[in-house]
Amino acid sequence: MKKLLNAADSVVEDALKGMAAAHPTLRIRDQVVYRADGPRQGKVGLVSGGGSGHEPLHAGFVGYGMLDAACPGEIFTSPVPDQIIEATKAVDGGAGVLHIVKNYTGDVLNFEMAAELAEDVEVASVLVDDDVAVQDSLYTAGRRGTGATLFVEKIAGALAEEGAPLADVAAVAREVDERSRSFGIALTSCTTPHAGKPTFDLPETDVELGIGIHGEPGRARVPMAPARELAATAMDAVHGDLPLRGDLLVMVNGMGGTPLMELYVVFAEVAAYVEGKGARVSRSLVGNYVTSLDMQGFSVTVCRLDDTLTRLWDAPVDTPGLRW
Amino acid sequence: MKKLLNAADSVVEDALKGMAAAHPTLRIRDQVVYRADGPRQGKVGLVSGGGSGHEPLHAGFVGYGMLDAACPGEIFTSPVPDQIIEATKAVDGGAGVLHIVKNYTGDVLNFEMAAELAEDVEVASVLVDDDVAVQDSLYTAGRRGTGATLFVEKIAGALAEEGAPLADVAAVAREVDERSRSFGIALTSCTTPHAGKPTFDLPETDVELGIGIHGEPGRARVPMAPARELAATAMDAVHGDLPLRGDLLVMVNGMGGTPLMELYVVFAEVAAYVEGKGARVSRSLVGNYVTSLDMQGFSVTVCRLDDTLTRLWDAPVDTPGLRW
Repeated sequence: MKKLLNAADSVVEDALKGMAAAHPTLRIRDQVVYRADGPRQGKVGLVSGGGSGHEPLHAGFVGYGMLDAACPGEIFTSPVPDQIIEATKAVDGGAGVLHIVKNYTGDVLNFEMAAELAEDVEVASVLVDDDVAVQDSLYTAGRRGTGATLFVEKIAGALAEEGAPLADVAAVAREVDERSRSFGIALTSCTTPHAGKPTFDLPETDVELGIGIHGEPGRARVPMAPARELAATAMDAVHGDLPLRGDLLVMVNGMGGTPLMELYVVFAEVAAYVEGKGARVSRSLVGNYVTSLDMQGFSVTVCRLDDTLTRLWDAPVDTPGLRW
Repeated sequence: MKKLLNAADSVVEDALKGMAAAHPTLRIRDQVVYRADGPRQGKVGLVSGGGSGHEPLHAGFVGYGMLDAACPGEIFTSPVPDQIIEATKAVDGGAGVLHIVKNYTGDVLNFEMAAELAEDVEVASVLVDDDVAVQDSLYTAGRRGTGATLFVEKIAGALAEEGAPLADVAAVAREVDERSRSFGIALTSCTTPHAGKPTFDLPETDVELGIGIHGEPGRARVPMAPARELAATAMDAVHGDLPLRGDLLVMVNGMGGTPLMELYVVFAEVAAYVEGKGARVSRSLVGNYVTSLDMQGFSVTVCRLDDTLTRLWDAPVDTPGLRW
């Protein structure tokens, strides 16, 4: 294993130093990433977080129109309650704070504990569980939270920026989760810096269907196939769970080690699939957004839009990872 | 080798279909990527291009404030003169066209031929040759063009958007090239779809210093080292050729298969190095911009800014790969 790092133990801290140096719009303190211009009085604060190794999620989505703070844990490890409490108190502008939590047992427990212990701050919480691949998994009771996290953070962030109250921001966040589904396929395993070898063995001839973002097992292991077939497999799983119709927000997301060119090849197939079902790709994203270290592969996330969600998706955003 | 594609022969065409589906601001015709809203009368047109496999370069930089058209060749293969002629004629708004050409023999020849054959269009040309690693290389007489291509496209694109004449746009493009230097380090080889196996052998213990963006050999092969040392090696090469001073634009660029987290680790070291030389990181980019398929590794590109270049760098841009 070759990785660009100084030591496995310092990789999260060292990467955060790089983020701070690269992005003057961020302020980083005690392993929490904040908007440098926050908190804003009267605005609902948005806090998310989770294990590191999924960059740009979450710290790369801190900024105008999205998150107020992100709490990165160690690699694939939940942030500790102290980080979340600190972030929650710091971003409160008097209008309360929304916790956006991916559905993994450790994250859920630590965010719950932090919500209880962040006295004097009104906290609402939304659980993201969009991955249709497995019902329960290695680190989850219920479905895993993956790509839809970005959609929730963007759309709830836009509504918070408009000055909406906490209940409304939480409601739109839940609505986005309910309208979103994801499915991922791995071509290779990820390798964590500490382990130094692939998390799982995957023969050169096979792919893992329904992979999790920590290398958790999916539904099945099948022979490698052309992009068209892999895209159809992922989309069949999504469509089987929430039929595609109307205007869709579609993300083809790279797992970290896959070139952009290949993601565009997949996106072309996904777009053709959507059209074949009589639905429409109304908005889209193609790139590395919710990654799993150096894993090769992709995931697709689909959200059924309505006029309000489209308007909030289109609203200006200014973060290191998403900007328009 | 596992890659997300339908067939090695159709990968460029299929990826362009995906780009067209994902980005309504682009129009793709005969393997040329155009701004859908061009040409603009009275504006200098900017055309670049080169082999595919470096995405988002170049097609991902077509849009407001950057390129008017990009001509993607097959993987690591120059675009043909017909593509370039077609693009040159199509983007001419009466103020002439600037060709931005990376210094590789095939690209240079084909752009030269196209400039001659694009009758009735005034064409100026700028050669990008920022890579300090080697003097001549496998595909080059003189230095290779790498990361500075993005700087040239962005800054010249901004000046063209302001309505400057061709001579001025060409002059600023040349100035950016003269003020920029790059150096890359590979942890792994890339694998082209047609070959299906790594372009070169690199032992698990070694890295290639001064790698080219097609896997061309660099200066030396040395044992893998911590990020701090690799960053210093790259920066020593840059600083040795063009001493760091004043305000710098610094890009830490991933080669395609390297996670963003690792690029931030490298950026932290590069920023510390710059500070140690008494210079300042005034503007920065961290991410996958000028890639080499699935290669793992990074390159660093530095440009010495002045007030004009800073203003043009900061000017609004709206492309799939760069947007602010």
